[in-house]
Amino acid sequence: MQATVTLVEAVIAGGIGTITLNHPEKKNCLSEALICDLCAALEEMWRHEARAVILRAPAGSQVFSAGHDVRELPTHGRDPLTYNDPLRRAVRAIELFPAPVIAMVEGSVWGGACELVMSCDLIVASDDCTFAMTVAKMGVPYNISGVQNLMNTCGMPLCKEMLFTAQPMPVKRLAHQGIVSHAVPRARLETVTRSIAEQIVKNSPLVISLLKEELRLLSASHNLGPETFERVQAMRRRIYDSADYQEGIHAFFERRSPQFEGK
Amino acid sequence: MQATVTLVEAVIAGGIGTITLNHPEKKNCLSEALICDLCAALEEMWRHEARAVILRAPAGSQVFSAGHDVRELPTHGRDPLTYNDPLRRAVRAIELFPAPVIAMVEGSVWGGACELVMSCDLIVASDDCTFAMTVAKMGVPYNISGVQNLMNTCGMPLCKEMLFTAQPMPVKRLAHQGIVSHAVPRARLETVTRSIAEQIVKNSPLVISLLKEELRLLSASHNLGPETFERVQAMRRRIYDSADYQEGIHAFFERRSPQFEGK
Amino acid sequence: MQATVTLVEAVIAGGIGTITLNHPEKKNCLSEALICDLCAALEEMWRHEARAVILRAPAGSQVFSAGHDVRELPTHGRDPLTYNDPLRRAVRAIELFPAPVIAMVEGSVWGGACELVMSCDLIVASDDCTFAMTVAKMGVPYNISGVQNLMNTCGMPLCKEMLFTAQPMPVKRLAHQGIVSHAVPRARLETVTRSIAEQIVKNSPLVISLLKEELRLLSASHNLGPETFERVQAMRRRIYDSADYQEGIHAFFERRSPQFEGK
Amino acid sequence: MQATVTLVEAVIAGGIGTITLNHPEKKNCLSEALICDLCAALEEMWRHEARAVILRAPAGSQVFSAGHDVRELPTHGRDPLTYNDPLRRAVRAIELFPAPVIAMVEGSVWGGACELVMSCDLIVASDDCTFAMTVAKMGVPYNISGVQNLMNTCGMPLCKEMLFTAQPMPVKRLAHQGIVSHAVPRARLETVTRSIAEQIVKNSPLVISLLKEELRLLSASHNLGPETFERVQAMRRRIYDSADYQEGIHAFFERRSPQFEGK
Amino acid sequence: MQATVTLVEAVIAGGIGTITLNHPEKKNCLSEALICDLCAALEEMWRHEARAVILRAPAGSQVFSAGHDVRELPTHGRDPLTYNDPLRRAVRAIELFPAPVIAMVEGSVWGGACELVMSCDLIVASDDCTFAMTVAKMGVPYNISGVQNLMNTCGMPLCKEMLFTAQPMPVKRLAHQGIVSHAVPRARLETVTRSIAEQIVKNSPLVISLLKEELRLLSASHNLGPETFERVQAMRRRIYDSADYQEGIHAFFERRSPQFEGK
Amino acid sequence: MQATVTLVEAVIAGGIGTITLNHPEKKNCLSEALICDLCAALEEMWRHEARAVILRAPAGSQVFSAGHDVRELPTHGRDPLTYNDPLRRAVRAIELFPAPVIAMVEGSVWGGACELVMSCDLIVASDDCTFAMTVAKMGVPYNISGVQNLMNTCGMPLCKEMLFTAQPMPVKRLAHQGIVSHAVPRARLETVTRSIAEQIVKNSPLVISLLKEELRLLSASHNLGPETFERVQAMRRRIYDSADYQEGIHAFFERRSPQFEGK
Ligand code: NI
Ligand code: NI
Ligand code: NI
Repeated sequence: MQATVTLVEAVIAGGIGTITLNHPEKKNCLSEALICDLCAALEEMWRHEARAVILRAPAGSQVFSAGHDVRELPTHGRDPLTYNDPLRRAVRAIELFPAPVIAMVEGSVWGGACELVMSCDLIVASDDCTFAMTVAKMGVPYNISGVQNLMNTCGMPLCKEMLFTAQPMPVKRLAHQGIVSHAVPRARLETVTRSIAEQIVKNSPLVISLLKEELRLLSASHNLGPETFERVQAMRRRIYDSADYQEGIHAFFERRSPQFEGK
Repeated sequence: MQATVTLVEAVIAGGIGTITLNHPEKKNCLSEALICDLCAALEEMWRHEARAVILRAPAGSQVFSAGHDVRELPTHGRDPLTYNDPLRRAVRAIELFPAPVIAMVEGSVWGGACELVMSCDLIVASDDCTFAMTVAKMGVPYNISGVQNLMNTCGMPLCKEMLFTAQPMPVKRLAHQGIVSHAVPRARLETVTRSIAEQIVKNSPLVISLLKEELRLLSASHNLGPETFERVQAMRRRIYDSADYQEGIHAFFERRSPQFEGK
Repeated sequence: MQATVTLVEAVIAGGIGTITLNHPEKKNCLSEALICDLCAALEEMWRHEARAVILRAPAGSQVFSAGHDVRELPTHGRDPLTYNDPLRRAVRAIELFPAPVIAMVEGSVWGGACELVMSCDLIVASDDCTFAMTVAKMGVPYNISGVQNLMNTCGMPLCKEMLFTAQPMPVKRLAHQGIVSHAVPRARLETVTRSIAEQIVKNSPLVISLLKEELRLLSASHNLGPETFERVQAMRRRIYDSADYQEGIHAFFERRSPQFEGK
Repeated sequence: MQATVTLVEAVIAGGIGTITLNHPEKKNCLSEALICDLCAALEEMWRHEARAVILRAPAGSQVFSAGHDVRELPTHGRDPLTYNDPLRRAVRAIELFPAPVIAMVEGSVWGGACELVMSCDLIVASDDCTFAMTVAKMGVPYNISGVQNLMNTCGMPLCKEMLFTAQPMPVKRLAHQGIVSHAVPRARLETVTRSIAEQIVKNSPLVISLLKEELRLLSASHNLGPETFERVQAMRRRIYDSADYQEGIHAFFERRSPQFEGK
Repeated sequence: MQATVTLVEAVIAGGIGTITLNHPEKKNCLSEALICDLCAALEEMWRHEARAVILRAPAGSQVFSAGHDVRELPTHGRDPLTYNDPLRRAVRAIELFPAPVIAMVEGSVWGGACELVMSCDLIVASDDCTFAMTVAKMGVPYNISGVQNLMNTCGMPLCKEMLFTAQPMPVKRLAHQGIVSHAVPRARLETVTRSIAEQIVKNSPLVISLLKEELRLLSASHNLGPETFERVQAMRRRIYDSADYQEGIHAFFERRSPQFEGK
Repeated sequence: MQATVTLVEAVIAGGIGTITLNHPEKKNCLSEALICDLCAALEEMWRHEARAVILRAPAGSQVFSAGHDVRELPTHGRDPLTYNDPLRRAVRAIELFPAPVIAMVEGSVWGGACELVMSCDLIVASDDCTFAMTVAKMGVPYNISGVQNLMNTCGMPLCKEMLFTAQPMPVKRLAHQGIVSHAVPRARLETVTRSIAEQIVKNSPLVISLLKEELRLLSASHNLGPETFERVQAMRRRIYDSADYQEGIHAFFERRSPQFEGK
């Protein structure tokens, strides 16, 4: 297989698929269009029975992905992060993909792209990249299944530090906590990533697929009652109805710091 | 205590509070205003340490309550049934009230008023009344904690028959299944209700309050994962964004049958 | 639409689908073949956007369905009731069908067919039919999601009486407990069933589909830990490895009472 | 086997065990001593591989059991209903007994004996008996697993009516709701009970044991978080530390109505 | 705002509150009195809409907090760690505080103070401090929601090592595991802490409050059945009724090592 | 106590038990026989009230344990990892042992032995050992409670890397993530391990036993619905019925790399 779609490149060889986010003009932001192409590429990989997939940006990228396409966030009283929105569809496509997806990260990772990368099964990164979870800076009410994904991968203290400060976190701290499996110099990034994929490809694809699904089910089993969810939903609605939410988006477009009033 | 608020009358005597829905012009529909008064009355009862509360309509009512105030449902892309909406606030106020609330039902009960009545601890009803759960007729996407309340009280088969047909159900079937504790002739309704309240009032209020809370917690423990909830939320959003939702509301105001297209 | 498949007839008119189990030689037993046809019929109904489906046997049937096809149960150390076996596929197809499925029951219902009928949203039955849950008589280790389905519909005491005695239960007791919504003379069976379907068809199909899914999720939320499940699985394996399991199947084919030894 | 222990008689014949509560001077109250004998009898039945057990009072009893032995309730700042107390041990012994236990009830059933009877798998009762859940009258803070047992068997509305009024409920209402499987004249009580036991005994004991365990696990799966439990525990402690708790016990011994103050 | 309460000092400036535990005579032990003042200070911070709170001891402290006030533990058959006890109230106050609480730790942290510090959202510590979870040394039966809090923050292996050995753990190991976000020389402690708080304060307070609540709900969702909880409660009661429990407290006051007998 | 059983040596002194796996011919593989001896040794320790147990291989071992005895895996359509299989019994025996079990690891740890070691409360290891989770290389469908155990101890990213690559992981990475509490030179291994055990032995055995049980319950509370389990069970069955499963076992005996086809 060798397919070329608009915003994403997909190649498969030796059982290893490689998907390259390739929308440099928009810094690989997670627009509806790019996510559609990403999901299509994953389906193509599925049909070709890839036993491991590497998700990457073009070599030498300064930005791995800029996160949400802020232009696509609704501005008037609509929930900006719902089940069928691009980021959630991409996260589910990766989680349900029946073989390991390895994020090979070069450059900075912003906002929703952090969750995209953390929804991958393994992360290998160049030792100079950074991760910034920016929702608190943007004023966007993150949804609870997104938060669960981050918490499952990061552990509580680092998750809170990243979410609450919204600052870029150097990859070394993530590697130290084991969230990023390997942080290596750029020159070795591809070699290290590929060697892990090659080890995976030799093993039983049925067993790996089972293990991935068992781990997904166990880590998704943080069950809550309906009323609790609806209460959280109401907190979220209060936020996307707020003046601060408008301020966050306006400040982003005007390239200035937002002034949040808490209402 | 003898308080009079606009849409609800509240009296307490001998440890038994009586709250009378009293907005006949709007058939006691569950408007923001009426629910505010109802919640205020319950708080007043709490302060006066009522050991049992009877919730009723004025004697001789043909309609106990007409359910949601359709005029208050949002029409444009907004969730019509959220955590802070009147019905949910009233249901929580009854569930968290630290003494039994007995619904004394005369006349027909429509839509959201069914859940209001079923959130009471006991239902005593005149043998000629009916209950109609009308959301499927109105086209309104009922929320999951509301559905849970009905399911907990009704049992599955009757709950489905009522929800799917949206027809008025004669009280006799509800009494037969034990959902309504006693269905009696109108002449005896008040006597029977009051005698139950009097038995309750003699018992330990601390123990009754504990038992009510234990039962509430156990029946609210139908836990689901965040992603499941968000999927349901997306189904609901698809409905309140639909043409059918508009059609349901328009048909209601034009007093005609709605023509649903399934989109 | 008017499709004819081998073991099942399917017709749709006025938004109401009718699926007739039609394998009289094998008393509509739930063989792999019949279930395939049933699932295909439901999919056909889905494509044609049926708003209600009636599941029935041919008019005048003495047996609605004889339950599992005992000939298809494995005899050597294999789990006889697993996720992909015919009964489970049929139950899931009914539960996930996005509109109400009404069982219209005439004649006796045996074994697995009880669960099939109880997985329907509503049951309307002729007043002379009977339901027998025969697994304890057959010696078959019923699986836990099957037991959950029965428990959700039946309530505990009746469920235990039926499962432990394995005797045919007259429909009147089921109707009395509300499990069967209406038990009527054979002459009126079709009229009553159809009138319920007609009420459903007028309502919002989107809302009914949502309500059905919400109820399914809530009643499926009896969560257990992995170790508990594996312990139950081991109890089940001990049974399908036992001499009694062989005895149950042999006795069935030899048309004699089994002699169980408890090992 | 034919064993005679002090407060309980135990006989087994034809695979059917019969345990007779036999402490008439104390109205079969659930004292430490009687429960020890009951549990020993059940263990004896287990060793002899009884396939069904009938739990009964002597023929002609006016009181089936008077419930807790109030003399054994602690009076000073100690939780009166804990995991190892007699009633809880007896309930667990019945729930974990690997064959059905059938309560054959003659005479009135008081307090904790209601839970004991409802923890049995089936209840057959004489049509003149009554059930009174008296904790709210006694002022005793019922524990949450006890409440769960009642709720699982009774359904919510009847459970609340019995718990909140603390009045004797005629068996007919319980039979109507299916909680008591059969309510028959005293003359036929033994025949009906025995015929159910005989049907059970013919079936696969391994399968019945599995089904009982599956149902127990599913109905015990109302999971709550640790903090919620500890909050309930604090409500309970407030009660057993209260003046009302002392009043309830004193009134019992002085054979007068308690005067509860709510503190 | 600039409030001074007896055992705790509270100041708020630039959206950042600072609460200083200030009871040096008792080494800031978590007495009823100190906790009351701490909770009052947090409420004051809430009213003034602090966007981050720093919880600290006075500069130069050798002991951050000595943990439980052993003098306040009950000695006779009473549960020493219940829902309304000081530590639990403080932990809930911090968890429910709608903005991040940052523990700025100087000096050693003992017993219950470990949980207090770990219930904070972030921990910044001087690189010479230690943490000792001493319940196993004191003989006190820790409650399950307390253990859950530690497990959520620490991860299993470190949590077990700390709980089972009861030895002071150097902060470096905690920092290595990411439990303490930053361990820095005393001279830089305040600067580092303050710079994190300043980053937080610039972000959306509504979003941060939502994220904190979502994380709290997810990490509190380790649900258990009522019977399991009551079994744990019985294990705990056996301990606070034991001779070892008395021995632990006596040894503490007599400043000697306890001799535990396991009964 | 000083017992000698065939494959395992057990000694207890000063409250500290030491269990030495001692079957060098089979590299301490987890055969039925060795596990029986291990469980018997733990029971013996229980009877002698050991307050800590060290689980080790003989000094100087090159292999700590080779994992499953592949000769004992069933080859024809039978689940190879069920509730009563040796590994699961050993894991439960360690988890339910009422005092800490410390794994003192020297040499490489293979396959199921990784879970055995990780089910211990603490791991102290020589700094040259390795851990390899080999199920994906063997083609064996790991069961969900086994996966849960690994996930609880390892954290997600490392768990996935180890499971998906099936490569030996140097202990340093495990120590870095806190999974192995201490990795020390072989010369100091016994001293370090013993000093931890000695600290534990001085503390309250009742409290430690409670803490261990509380942590076990909390980390086992990842609850799922019955249908989800049965779906996983079906995935597992598909694997042990597959040609790849046969290939994995054959390749093992023929000492060659397996060629997996994914079917
Ligand atoms: Ni009737
Ligand atoms: Ni339930
Ligand atoms: Ni968890």
